Amino acid sequence: MHQLVEYADATPDVRAVYDDIMATRKTDWINNFWKALANDPVTLRRTWESIKQIMAPGALDPLTKEMIYIAVSVTNQCPYCIASHTASACKKGMTGAMFHELMAVVGMANETNRLASGYQVEIDEQFKTP
Amino acid sequence: MHQLVEYADATPDVRAVYDDIMATRKTDWINNFWKALANDPVTLRRTWESIKQIMAPGALDPLTKEMIYIAVSVTNQCPYCIASHTASACKKGMTGAMFHELMAVVGMANETNRLASGYQVEIDEQFKTP
Amino acid sequence: MHQLVEYADATPDVRAVYDDIMATRKTDWINNFWKALANDPVTLRRTWESIKQIMAPGALDPLTKEMIYIAVSVTNQCPYCIASHTASACKKGMTGAMFHELMAVVGMANETNRLASGYQVEIDEQFKTP
Amino acid sequence: MHQLVEYADATPDVRAVYDDIMATRKTDWINNFWKALANDPVTLRRTWESIKQIMAPGALDPLTKEMIYIAVSVTNQCPYCIASHTASACKKGMTGAMFHELMAVVGMANETNRLASGYQVEIDEQFKTP
Amino acid sequence: MHQLVEYADATPDVRAVYDDIMATRKTDWINNFWKALANDPVTLRRTWESIKQIMAPGALDPLTKEMIYIAVSVTNQCPYCIASHTASACKKGMTGAMFHELMAVVGMANETNRLASGYQVEIDEQFKTP
Amino acid sequence: MHQLVEYADATPDVRAVYDDIMATRKTDWINNFWKALANDPVTLRRTWESIKQIMAPGALDPLTKEMIYIAVSVTNQCPYCIASHTASACKKGMTGAMFHELMAVVGMANETNRLASGYQVEIDEQFKTP
Repeated sequence: MHQLVEYADATPDVRAVYDDIMATRKTDWINNFWKALANDPVTLRRTWESIKQIMAPGALDPLTKEMIYIAVSVTNQCPYCIASHTASACKKGMTGAMFHELMAVVGMANETNRLASGYQVEIDEQFKTP
Repeated sequence: MHQLVEYADATPDVRAVYDDIMATRKTDWINNFWKALANDPVTLRRTWESIKQIMAPGALDPLTKEMIYIAVSVTNQCPYCIASHTASACKKGMTGAMFHELMAVVGMANETNRLASGYQVEIDEQFKTP
Repeated sequence: MHQLVEYADATPDVRAVYDDIMATRKTDWINNFWKALANDPVTLRRTWESIKQIMAPGALDPLTKEMIYIAVSVTNQCPYCIASHTASACKKGMTGAMFHELMAVVGMANETNRLASGYQVEIDEQFKTP
Repeated sequence: MHQLVEYADATPDVRAVYDDIMATRKTDWINNFWKALANDPVTLRRTWESIKQIMAPGALDPLTKEMIYIAVSVTNQCPYCIASHTASACKKGMTGAMFHELMAVVGMANETNRLASGYQVEIDEQFKTP
Repeated sequence: MHQLVEYADATPDVRAVYDDIMATRKTDWINNFWKALANDPVTLRRTWESIKQIMAPGALDPLTKEMIYIAVSVTNQCPYCIASHTASACKKGMTGAMFHELMAVVGMANETNRLASGYQVEIDEQFKTP
Repeated sequence: MHQLVEYADATPDVRAVYDDIMATRKTDWINNFWKALANDPVTLRRTWESIKQIMAPGALDPLTKEMIYIAVSVTNQCPYCIASHTASACKKGMTGAMFHELMAVVGMANETNRLASGYQVEIDEQFKTP
């Protein structure tokens, strides 16, 4: 059910997505995530179109977005996404120092999230004002 | 067990931490998280010293760090931390557009984390090279 | 501590559970999950009796229940449970198309769960009425 | 930043999404989730279009999809999504008996996910064959 | 669907469980968790019988078990379970100092769990020997 | 970026932490977690100092603390931390029977956390009094 769909075996609509991924990312290969999703061309296209829109430069730069992606993936303990987005962030310029600070913040946030809930801390009125 | 420790009732060591929090953050009040932690002065000090070190400007700027904090807190569904760090990020310059893009990335990462694990995708060799 | 307990080495009470698992599931082997739990016969029996009761046909059919099991396991990122319950669901008739839609819903739910908490959305009055 | 966008105050593009939501769901009101997302019209439209596509009848019926949505939301402990999708599922015909069985499966899956990881159970070869 | 089942309105089988809960816990009231589960008498009984068996004194004492329950509930950010099991642990003798250390461990474990996965640390051979 | 820093290649400040870890734990080797963190000496030191303080004997004994660490790691599904802290707990005297009861509590807590949120149970007044 989850075999990887290689470019050579792909239908035209899957190939079109693969081509757009490679063109957008300026790369010449497709990683396993997309090859697995290609078993379901509708989800493949929707997911790629969404990611393409979301990860494009905007109010936040692409590297910041990759680091946010890593923060979520590490919190969720998703090995695939940690590996792929860390590689992606490095390619976009994340230095070792940036990665180290990212991990430090992610670790601390996971800690204080639990201290806040464990101590059953109520939200301050000051934080409720939009 | 979890009553909030107000400044007026605090011991000198707790007051010293409160003073440092207010001086570092250039504010004149202490939020409930610290008042709850103050029931355990050792944890109060260690947590504050760690956060002060981690959130200081470095390879990543303070606003980027706040947004990473939000990404983790939203993923963990911690209402207190979402409210407090969103307020904090706004104070440091997060615009509505930045917040919207942050949420879009956090949402998408949470989605693709599950697609990757649900499809049992293996990590590409290319992502294993450090 | 976690060695797998094979049928040949099992005590009578563990064998009785193994026999019931194989009879109930119409299969001739025991998967590693049960062989690991067999180190604690009390938990083995309680867990099996609970699962047997819960996964039996009722207001929901067994395949729907397997898909719900997958949805939880994917959300929690449990590789063992994803693999075993996906195999189980296939055996009970889950088609590729069903699996793809299941993954799409699981992914989207994980996304909107975070959008709802990140935007600090309050529950509508209409949803509070039982 | 997170004020709710009411229909009367919405821009034409937001109103177009609101209209489609109400028409698709055969209802005359918009719940808070969409009113919050409307602060970011691009995310509002993308999220709605995705959900509309994903939750439509297909290999799985809409009620089964709602129950999968609940399974994820309960696992993630998202109060808003639990409330809204439980209401939604009831409207689509979920009976009390179905809800009870759904909860029983979700609870048990969350339990055995941890037993599998805590006992460090390796995936059986039989489960690795697609 | 989720109304609370009061003792006066309960069927004999639900009352039997309520009676056993009160006798076992040496208390004269039933907390909302059980009153909600009572909508599904089968799940009510199975869950109570399981908890009664699991939380009884054994190789671990009941207070240690309550603190483990809190550790899980805090990690999952479940407000109801945090409140109820913290109250339970206090009744069984948890002091403020014990609670503070419990929270410190829970917080730190949540932090290092993410550092381990974020740095993609491989399991040492020494830890693989049972 | 994540290569492991061996003792022979470590800077004096990293070696000082390594020496303290081995002295405190009465062991002659360093596990991969610390060798990975050593890429960021500041985080290495802060994390070690925090863990040393938190895991020391206090109101809770070191073995109880290790079991709480396991409870969190299992709930978060962190394979590295499960393996390392289970090994650690065994070294500190955790028997098979203790481990089995620990797992039973962790499993059940993960189950009832979801039943509580799925049934949308409100916190009893009795649990709100500190």
